[in-house]
Amino acid sequence: MSIKIGIVGYGNLGKGAVKAIQLCEDMELVAVFTRRNPESLALEDTDAQAVHVSKAEEYKDKIDVMILCGGSATDLPEQGPEFAKIFNTIDSYDTHAKIPEYFQSVDEAAKAGGKTSIISVGWDPGLFSINRLMAEAILPNGENYTFWGKGLSQGHSDAIRRVEGVKNGVQYTIPMEEAINRVRSGENPELTTAEKHRRVCYVVPEKGYDTEKIAQEIKTMPNYFADYETEVHFISEEELKANHSAAPHGGFVIRGGKTGEGNTQVYEFSLKLDSNPEFTASVLVAYARAAYRLNQEGQFGAKTVFDVPPVYISPRSPEQLRKDLL
Amino acid sequence: MSIKIGIVGYGNLGKGAVKAIQLCEDMELVAVFTRRNPESLALEDTDAQAVHVSKAEEYKDKIDVMILCGGSATDLPEQGPEFAKIFNTIDSYDTHAKIPEYFQSVDEAAKAGGKTSIISVGWDPGLFSINRLMAEAILPNGENYTFWGKGLSQGHSDAIRRVEGVKNGVQYTIPMEEAINRVRSGENPELTTAEKHRRVCYVVPEKGYDTEKIAQEIKTMPNYFADYETEVHFISEEELKANHSAAPHGGFVIRGGKTGEGNTQVYEFSLKLDSNPEFTASVLVAYARAAYRLNQEGQFGAKTVFDVPPVYISPRSPEQLRKDLL
Repeated sequence: MSIKIGIVGYGNLGKGAVKAIQLCEDMELVAVFTRRNPESLALEDTDAQAVHVSKAEEYKDKIDVMILCGGSATDLPEQGPEFAKIFNTIDSYDTHAKIPEYFQSVDEAAKAGGKTSIISVGWDPGLFSINRLMAEAILPNGENYTFWGKGLSQGHSDAIRRVEGVKNGVQYTIPMEEAINRVRSGENPELTTAEKHRRVCYVVPEKGYDTEKIAQEIKTMPNYFADYETEVHFISEEELKANHSAAPHGGFVIRGGKTGEGNTQVYEFSLKLDSNPEFTASVLVAYARAAYRLNQEGQFGAKTVFDVPPVYISPRSPEQLRKDLL
Repeated sequence: MSIKIGIVGYGNLGKGAVKAIQLCEDMELVAVFTRRNPESLALEDTDAQAVHVSKAEEYKDKIDVMILCGGSATDLPEQGPEFAKIFNTIDSYDTHAKIPEYFQSVDEAAKAGGKTSIISVGWDPGLFSINRLMAEAILPNGENYTFWGKGLSQGHSDAIRRVEGVKNGVQYTIPMEEAINRVRSGENPELTTAEKHRRVCYVVPEKGYDTEKIAQEIKTMPNYFADYETEVHFISEEELKANHSAAPHGGFVIRGGKTGEGNTQVYEFSLKLDSNPEFTASVLVAYARAAYRLNQEGQFGAKTVFDVPPVYISPRSPEQLRKDLL
């Protein structure tokens, strides 16, 4: 018997989820729900239906877990609690400051419906969070560091594109090798965000604009770039398409801790991702298994990755896992 | 209210546990149980009592979790089930091949006593196992690799010391940089254990023995060294004491996986430890919290790290953790 999955939203994350489900023999994709005209969705390599999101409730008994692939800014604050009443859900809510509030609204909805919702799943929040928690619990006398990149930052790329004279552009966040090495040595340095990362921009200028002026405006932009070591490179639209249309990302969680008489212990978790949305979707899909199982056990309400035993995300039996992977 | 802890065994691991508990404000060390004369134990910086192990049962109602710090070869197969009947327990059982059998005997004992035992806790088995499981569940189309080292191997050091003419010696297992880099690139190479690690020995020869013959005997020792690139260095007893009496260890779990149309995603977890026993003890102590909580919830029987939600190993509340670390 396979776990029946629905996907809400067919952007990069939703597309990644379709592909990730294909790698899971214990899952079956039933339908992709969209706000667009469902006929406009070209679902590839799947028998799943494209369905207008307004008809989702009709799938109440046909879907075990709904993977919400909308955005954190506007979609999830509404969709999260709405779907949690009717379906077990997984989402990648990542507006850090509002997580407690979001957790509560999803928790109430899920409990009312006898459903289980795992929120803020992915790699950060998600796998990085788990490692921050575990490293801190195991090495209480220490310090957590999170570095992001090398990765394409959507927010900073948007900021570049709002600059006058910029036709197109992308921004990579790159962790400082020197800072990582200091952290890895266990010295627990004090580092500002600016000392941890640098920013590299590839910009396509509009014709007739002064590139020096554009570069200056980017480098001095408050919050986004002013505090950082920032490089600006000007390239052609063709070059941008050819070399900068992938969405790589990744990063590091490192904790240096002391035990006993000053022994240094260094804990490190890292990801190097060719495709950020495909990896995030893969995490969501694995945790869909956990939502289904927790719900079967009667564990209703909102959960996070902190609440999920590793065994629940694997398709294999506890006996097999103990034998092969412990 | 603090969690009351007992420790069975006062070797390197037990000593590490005493120190790790001192860093945990929510725990109190009640007693260390030993087979030796308890008066011979010089417990440092703790008000805990040293007690003969034969009197452990008298502490039935005074201890919430017993941390078993005996060895896997001879102590734990007996102590594990014996203590699991009476106490919640944590142990670092690491004889991989016999884990299913050990799990079952502890499970029966713990269930009979209404207790909770988490077995095979530490870093491998333990944290490495969790990462093997999670990486596989998230990236089903991929391959797990585990590298150990740079680390002092007790078993291989013992093997050296059994060679005729060897007065003392240690062996370090060192992962092959080239193999790690190939795995990190996501190419998923086929690698034998010998291609993943090399072995470096520091040997103190007895007077009058031919060092060349000793080196030859070590390098050709079946199973331990013959299949590996092995270096043998001869040093003095003083040098051994000065430079090779620490117990560093660590290693890497790396999984390269593919998603979508051939995007490479690399998942990596690593540890660099100045003191293997102190780190292992720190993991045991954090999981003692989980054993206590699982037992409070009525989850009786044997568990492994696979069954434990991360939140259970942290002293902080779920609300705080969601706010600060998610």
